[in-house]
Amino acid sequence: MFQIDPAFVATSHALGELTLCELRLQDDARYPWLVLIPRGVALREIEDLMAMERAQLMDEIVHAGRALRVLGEALGVPVEKLNVGALGNVTPQLHVHVVGRRHDDPAWPGPVWGHSPAEPYTSDELAYAVETARRALGL
Amino acid sequence: MFQIDPAFVATSHALGELTLCELRLQDDARYPWLVLIPRGVALREIEDLMAMERAQLMDEIVHAGRALRVLGEALGVPVEKLNVGALGNVTPQLHVHVVGRRHDDPAWPGPVWGHSPAEPYTSDELAYAVETARRALGL
Repeated sequence: MFQIDPAFVATSHALGELTLCELRLQDDARYPWLVLIPRGVALREIEDLMAMERAQLMDEIVHAGRALRVLGEALGVPVEKLNVGALGNVTPQLHVHVVGRRHDDPAWPGPVWGHSPAEPYTSDELAYAVETARRALGL
Repeated sequence: MFQIDPAFVATSHALGELTLCELRLQDDARYPWLVLIPRGVALREIEDLMAMERAQLMDEIVHAGRALRVLGEALGVPVEKLNVGALGNVTPQLHVHVVGRRHDDPAWPGPVWGHSPAEPYTSDELAYAVETARRALGL
């Protein structure tokens, strides 16, 4: 049975479901940041998906990137560069990060992963970010 | 006209061409590491590709990952986890890194990007790695 690794629940907030993926908002107010988790059992690598699912994942990555541009504008940190990463060294369940980056963000120009501890949203910010992201994603 | 950013020429070696991408071997003997550069003018983000090109990119990412498993075995560092990343914060031309990771590699479990200076292949190692990668990629 498909289950989301508890590590994702601890660090991000559910936004809803696209055709292939669960969408989550990473709880770090410094970056507009979505996590896509394909619904499937024992998935670890992109190659574990069927060809049609891989094409769907690509579509959902692009969809997430467009939503991040909307979210970044709404949060006052317009996206200058998208970063897309499927790592999974720490949490092996297959997932893809889509992160909106700026030249003035804390990790620039390096990757966000492993850079520094997250700075969680306040509850008001979080409600606004979740609502904005959901609308932009069509969820 | 399509041109590869000189930054790639300085840090990697040409392997050949797939349908969409130029394939290059990153010159860092610590990781089996391929760089895919879609042939197109002024590409910066995955969303700049047409839908069919995006699906092709996904196919070539999976193909590269399989070749990395062969390369890692040949180099004595079998791949335990694939890392896939499209960042472009430093070199904005669209490119995708596919990296073979191990629990005993220098950057584990963090990302390789920005971790530490590359350790280039010796000329003998490089010739062997290029030949092995080309064969595994069907180039």
